[in-house]
Amino acid sequence: MAPAGGPRADRGILERLEGGEVVIGDGSFLITLEKRGYVKAGLWTPEAVVEHPDAVRQLHMEFLRAGSNVMQTFTFSASEDNMEGKYFEHIEEAVWAVEVLKETGKPVAATMCIGPEGDVRGVTPGACAVKLVEAGASIVGVNCRFGPRVSLKTVRLMKEGLGAAGLKAHFMVQSLGFHTPDCGKGGFVDLPEYPFGLEPRVATRWDIQKYAREAYNLGVRYIGGCCGFEPYHIRAIAEELAPERGFLPPASEKHGSWGSGLDMHTKPWIRARTQREYWESLLPASGRPFCPSLSKPDA
Amino acid sequence: MAPAGGPRADRGILERLEGGEVVIGDGSFLITLEKRGYVKAGLWTPEAVVEHPDAVRQLHMEFLRAGSNVMQTFTFSASEDNMEGKYFEHIEEAVWAVEVLKETGKPVAATMCIGPEGDVRGVTPGACAVKLVEAGASIVGVNCRFGPRVSLKTVRLMKEGLGAAGLKAHFMVQSLGFHTPDCGKGGFVDLPEYPFGLEPRVATRWDIQKYAREAYNLGVRYIGGCCGFEPYHIRAIAEELAPERGFLPPASEKHGSWGSGLDMHTKPWIRARTQREYWESLLPASGRPFCPSLSKPDA
Amino acid sequence: MAPAGGPRADRGILERLEGGEVVIGDGSFLITLEKRGYVKAGLWTPEAVVEHPDAVRQLHMEFLRAGSNVMQTFTFSASEDNMEGKYFEHIEEAVWAVEVLKETGKPVAATMCIGPEGDVRGVTPGACAVKLVEAGASIVGVNCRFGPRVSLKTVRLMKEGLGAAGLKAHFMVQSLGFHTPDCGKGGFVDLPEYPFGLEPRVATRWDIQKYAREAYNLGVRYIGGCCGFEPYHIRAIAEELAPERGFLPPASEKHGSWGSGLDMHTKPWIRARTQREYWESLLPASGRPFCPSLSKPDA
Amino acid sequence: MAPAGGPRADRGILERLEGGEVVIGDGSFLITLEKRGYVKAGLWTPEAVVEHPDAVRQLHMEFLRAGSNVMQTFTFSASEDNMEGKYFEHIEEAVWAVEVLKETGKPVAATMCIGPEGDVRGVTPGACAVKLVEAGASIVGVNCRFGPRVSLKTVRLMKEGLGAAGLKAHFMVQSLGFHTPDCGKGGFVDLPEYPFGLEPRVATRWDIQKYAREAYNLGVRYIGGCCGFEPYHIRAIAEELAPERGFLPPASEKHGSWGSGLDMHTKPWIRARTQREYWESLLPASGRPFCPSLSKPDA
Repeated sequence: MAPAGGPRADRGILERLEGGEVVIGDGSFLITLEKRGYVKAGLWTPEAVVEHPDAVRQLHMEFLRAGSNVMQTFTFSASEDNMEGKYFEHIEEAVWAVEVLKETGKPVAATMCIGPEGDVRGVTPGACAVKLVEAGASIVGVNCRFGPRVSLKTVRLMKEGLGAAGLKAHFMVQSLGFHTPDCGKGGFVDLPEYPFGLEPRVATRWDIQKYAREAYNLGVRYIGGCCGFEPYHIRAIAEELAPERGFLPPASEKHGSWGSGLDMHTKPWIRARTQREYWESLLPASGRPFCPSLSKPDA
Repeated sequence: MAPAGGPRADRGILERLEGGEVVIGDGSFLITLEKRGYVKAGLWTPEAVVEHPDAVRQLHMEFLRAGSNVMQTFTFSASEDNMEGKYFEHIEEAVWAVEVLKETGKPVAATMCIGPEGDVRGVTPGACAVKLVEAGASIVGVNCRFGPRVSLKTVRLMKEGLGAAGLKAHFMVQSLGFHTPDCGKGGFVDLPEYPFGLEPRVATRWDIQKYAREAYNLGVRYIGGCCGFEPYHIRAIAEELAPERGFLPPASEKHGSWGSGLDMHTKPWIRARTQREYWESLLPASGRPFCPSLSKPDA
Repeated sequence: MAPAGGPRADRGILERLEGGEVVIGDGSFLITLEKRGYVKAGLWTPEAVVEHPDAVRQLHMEFLRAGSNVMQTFTFSASEDNMEGKYFEHIEEAVWAVEVLKETGKPVAATMCIGPEGDVRGVTPGACAVKLVEAGASIVGVNCRFGPRVSLKTVRLMKEGLGAAGLKAHFMVQSLGFHTPDCGKGGFVDLPEYPFGLEPRVATRWDIQKYAREAYNLGVRYIGGCCGFEPYHIRAIAEELAPERGFLPPASEKHGSWGSGLDMHTKPWIRARTQREYWESLLPASGRPFCPSLSKPDA
Repeated sequence: MAPAGGPRADRGILERLEGGEVVIGDGSFLITLEKRGYVKAGLWTPEAVVEHPDAVRQLHMEFLRAGSNVMQTFTFSASEDNMEGKYFEHIEEAVWAVEVLKETGKPVAATMCIGPEGDVRGVTPGACAVKLVEAGASIVGVNCRFGPRVSLKTVRLMKEGLGAAGLKAHFMVQSLGFHTPDCGKGGFVDLPEYPFGLEPRVATRWDIQKYAREAYNLGVRYIGGCCGFEPYHIRAIAEELAPERGFLPPASEKHGSWGSGLDMHTKPWIRARTQREYWESLLPASGRPFCPSLSKPDA
């Protein structure tokens, strides 16, 4: 775990959260490197680290430049045959892992791949958060499997569960970069578009600015992304929360706030797209008139 | 222009086309590097070549690995104040450029940014192709501004125009990676989503396989992409036309044909997604039930 | 209340339900007569009964012919200034009305205009059903304000509430003829399309056959419609449940089951539309590519 | 042909058109009576005239009340086995019919069921109009098979064709009440939704006001509807063109202009729906998030 960027980058993550900082996570590795040609879908294994280290390093550099404070080492595998276990669908496994990690004496962050409806055995997000905190986790939240709005709904339920139990924790969220209002308990893997037809679901930068603001308002202070979260999505978090954090990420030197880089275009209707209101109210078309807007999950 | 990949990579482009080869172009630089944090939208200038050469080199490597035979040097600018001229909306400028280039003695490829409705002065694609070939172009076609289907429609009209005039040429197409059935004469820049809300329009790899096949059937032998065309889109061209070309690109070592990499997934409904028929018939949902499927262009 | 159609039409409604019959209600009066030119939207008053009795009688005849067993007298008003009261959004009023009606000695049917989220004060459908049955209602259910799927979800919650309280009742449902997956607590009146832009939401006959079947499977035995429910929708209920009821309605002499009337069409692809599977799997397009699929309610 | 309503109702249709009047046609009989339970889809025969004369008379009264100046006798059949002939897909048949009718000495109106792409043999709308006028038709236009926008496009092409040939005629249009931007040469019968899944395509009254205005601006003076055109759609034509015609139809006593009947609603957000701008800019949702916006015709 290599902290990076911004002032006080040498402090530990828990210390930073205790101090009221906003910590920005990184984004998508497996799905992004698949699109770049270095990871095989289905296997989802990280051999690119040895086969193509430059490609992996490049992606790390992009997230860092986009504002990530935390770089997760790309050593995890989501290979389909052990995915279920890795995703900790059974909360007992996560609790056990927290208890083991607690013995290292370092702060433990536990994120679950669950949605608002809870895990496969029916444990709710609230009950899940209580179990994790009681087991020793200092930071709880969700990552992967669900899109921005659904992930935030789950964190809200976790927060309510802790509140009802008189417990406290720091919260983190690492949503997919895909919209999944139609997913079931299993999340995006059960959608018929997974994993090769997810393009029309990719979030815009403006969707992610909204996500960052809502996460912040909910009290979440570790905000990042998971599958589908590209560097410009991470930059969107950093830009949205720049007023609170007091600084912009390096990649913002190549990004005019709310489209301001278009202000010298020769066509007046394109120059008009330099307003926050324009992008916030835009309902982007799919260009796919034969496609529906929602899917029915396979499970 | 650095030829790469496949057998006979040392031959010139015209020689290869004359020999009946399929030549695969590269993809998106400006828009892709914008998302990676190195290009500023609106300016669309290529200073990344000096500021962040590793990032540019990495993208070149990805296209090469995905199957591109031709690497265009990233020295062009689409800065908004001179974009109109660069895009050769007035066909006279393109004809003049072809005449100048012809004097170098090298083969001239002329691609226009026009759609089926023709240029701003009403010159049709057919008439345009005739002018370019008469001026000395050996290869004619389209690039940028329009998506796969619209671009192919334009090339078809060019071909018909040449046929009616008793002329011949090689054809090339470098479509956007975005679907634009709703664009007007100006192409995607006039759509309200340009350039920061185009995500739901991004083509899937299967859309691009279809595009490659249709281009081939139309007689196009230089097939590539433009804005929005990621490395995996280029790989999709190379995979679709592998039977004709006789080889796969390096990046296919990380890609199971038609989703076959999913065949060991623990969930049977995901294993079922390893059939060509599955992905060809999928109509991917946008996950955006409040958004329309088409937009009205601003101009 | 004029019983009509089918065998044993002279028996009272409760007697019929106790005997296990399926009773079919009628459909839309105000909204349908508005489209025919006899009712003014906003006022929604039934003066057509005296001004244009032939028009009202004709609509009654159509519902009767389509299979309605029960004709409600068209004497109700939904005038906007007293609509809130009429709709019994406050369940106390409905309970009071049930208690008053109980004194007549006749069976009392109480339908509420509530959705799954309950009434304005937060009383859930389950609690609502318990209150109504304890107050004396023999038949409970929902009518108006919500579409087929949402209405059935509410009845399911009512049934579960009664079950948990150890109570029993007959169930009735009279859904809108419009799809409203996106409505809030207030139902369709809060959707931006109400009341003059609801057309794309109108249910097909196949949607209503599905609704009838699901209602039946849920244990509902009084099944009808409300605003937007046209005669052919009522016929669809009667046709779907013909196996259970043992007879078809008169209007079925003009309706081939599952499109069978098309079997002599000269175009083979239209003849192919005479299969149940065809219509059950059809996802009908809106023909409106600039429109979204869902709306955000105004309240 | 029974002229009705408005001043000068005793004059002939040609006399009225010559005098600059706007004549309003009637609407849908077969499809509307099918939904009311009196016509069988597939057969599409008018036996209701003898079996249920009250039902037919009632529909005539509704169109009359909504503003129709012209009542077509309900004696036509569109039975599927002779439909092709009736629809005059081969323009020669229509020309022959015009020549025969011309001998009666009465004015001949010839409407074709063709779209912008012309008839099955490739005769364009312009060439078709020229043939019909040369054969003796005083009024030319289109009816059925295509929706409002497509029908107007065809009439525009007819007008241009006549202009190029130095000919003149009166124009009429009787569009479907369904939106069909996606239909092919054969019109709505080839859409997969025909005839039992067309609901989401039904035009709103505001769509029809726009259609009436555009028809008028194009120079069309006989404006009506065909399949799917309900009485309130006819009223929408009469209301849109009331300024030009100088009077409103009887059914407007039950219709507040642009939603004004809602102005006493207790909810302020519903009262806000009494503005022309509100309804003109509304993009009505389908309430069907699993359905596409366009279909691919079967032929």
